[in-house]
Amino acid sequence: MRLIDGTTLAQQINTGLMQRYAAEYVQRGKTLHLGVVVVGEDPATMSFIRQKERTAAAIGIKFSLLRFPENISTTALRKNISMTVHSQRYNAFIVQLPLPSHLNQSYILNAIPARYDADCLSAIRLGKFYTRSLQTLAPPPVQALDLVFRQYTIDVVGKTVVLVGAGLLIGKPLAIFFINQGATVIVANSRTADLAAYLRKADIIVSGAGQAHMITAGMTKNDAVIIDFGFTQVNGKVVGDVDYESFHRTDCLIAPVPGGMGPLTVSMLFNNILLLHQDNTKTKTII
Amino acid sequence: MRLIDGTTLAQQINTGLMQRYAAEYVQRGKTLHLGVVVVGEDPATMSFIRQKERTAAAIGIKFSLLRFPENISTTALRKNISMTVHSQRYNAFIVQLPLPSHLNQSYILNAIPARYDADCLSAIRLGKFYTRSLQTLAPPPVQALDLVFRQYTIDVVGKTVVLVGAGLLIGKPLAIFFINQGATVIVANSRTADLAAYLRKADIIVSGAGQAHMITAGMTKNDAVIIDFGFTQVNGKVVGDVDYESFHRTDCLIAPVPGGMGPLTVSMLFNNILLLHQDNTKTKTII
Repeated sequence: MRLIDGTTLAQQINTGLMQRYAAEYVQRGKTLHLGVVVVGEDPATMSFIRQKERTAAAIGIKFSLLRFPENISTTALRKNISMTVHSQRYNAFIVQLPLPSHLNQSYILNAIPARYDADCLSAIRLGKFYTRSLQTLAPPPVQALDLVFRQYTIDVVGKTVVLVGAGLLIGKPLAIFFINQGATVIVANSRTADLAAYLRKADIIVSGAGQAHMITAGMTKNDAVIIDFGFTQVNGKVVGDVDYESFHRTDCLIAPVPGGMGPLTVSMLFNNILLLHQDNTKTKTII
Repeated sequence: MRLIDGTTLAQQINTGLMQRYAAEYVQRGKTLHLGVVVVGEDPATMSFIRQKERTAAAIGIKFSLLRFPENISTTALRKNISMTVHSQRYNAFIVQLPLPSHLNQSYILNAIPARYDADCLSAIRLGKFYTRSLQTLAPPPVQALDLVFRQYTIDVVGKTVVLVGAGLLIGKPLAIFFINQGATVIVANSRTADLAAYLRKADIIVSGAGQAHMITAGMTKNDAVIIDFGFTQVNGKVVGDVDYESFHRTDCLIAPVPGGMGPLTVSMLFNNILLLHQDNTKTKTII
């Protein structure tokens, strides 16, 4: 097997972003400021946030965390976000997911105007992504995958892609991405009876199920491309959906967890922040 | 086999729409006005438009056709639409698809503000549909399918759905619909090698390929639900993707062409026009 070293690739990208940011912003006396909303204190969520905070620091972008209690209402959170985002202190604004289940996620995400929406999760941004409108922004996991596929010259047209999981962050946007690219796309969820049969057929597998080590060698083609967005904590250790070590005798190309798509997705968030600001400066009509 | 009689069902819906429209609009001295943009003179396209015109007349909604030459540029058409739609003479506005291939379809569709977008094809409307936002509107083919599935109590959760074709009007929005409903979704296109194997597995098949009679009895389960959105003219006769007559010995439930989803999709467009106007009147913040 070959492993995709997302950590090294992300560091290279972050260095590039830092240089661009220094040249285009810092040296002109400008700064960009990212606001991050988090609800509750889930340790896994907080560790994702710290990753973003470290990357912001590495690039030089200002980072502010806005914390809200677990039991906040949808209305109160939406109001808070609307007020905060319109204070114009921020250039980009994101809500860390997942939100507690009592909250109306899309109503809250839609409080973020498109010009601040670096995660590309508001309806207008997703709609433009969905219709392949002339725009530069896609959700960070999509951009991270696109980057890896370009890097490794993985062609998608006519390929069979199995998406394990159909969530807002991974499965759904990647379904659109692969449909737009001309692949045969199979979207499986926890109720899919024939997952094994689909996995055996897949040229490309993308997993975002959050089921530790559910995919092992022998379940896939010998030369499948396997992209793992899964994330579970097992005995204090971060584990993906793919038991990548079991693939060592195969010819598969694997983006493992940890160290694969995670760091790249964070880099692409910051890439989006720079793109967003360019777009907003260049033209007021893009949104 | 059982055939879904879309023509009769659509007539019932149109009668209901006419009564609602009479009570809520005509008797209060109000009218609604639909503007329809068409580019070129393709006979099939014009026959779709005449269907919409007849339905508008049956309900009582005012219908205006805005015709543009085949060789109009994207910029000119977008400008024309923007000016026309903002004249405020219309309550709903649609662009008849397909557009000639030299035109940038999504850029043109995005000229229609959400409050006029009865076809639900602008980025903001599609984005809200994609994220299942609290809203009443979905693209008419999705609503027509949803209506049929309710009428025939067809459960989708955990079922295997094969979508033949991945276009903007049928395949993509229905992929989102079925993903949102918890089905296993297989999106096939003209390059899909194993279509036959997928069709054999499918509980539900939705076709929008435009390949006359490509699906015949023996290719599917004996009790599949088969929804045909395909449309081809063969020797002056309208023909669907499904050779439904060949299924007469099966237990399949089929929405055939002609007389299945077509008339229902037109009814759902007009249902959207009423919903749109209610939304716009009730609250200014829905979009």
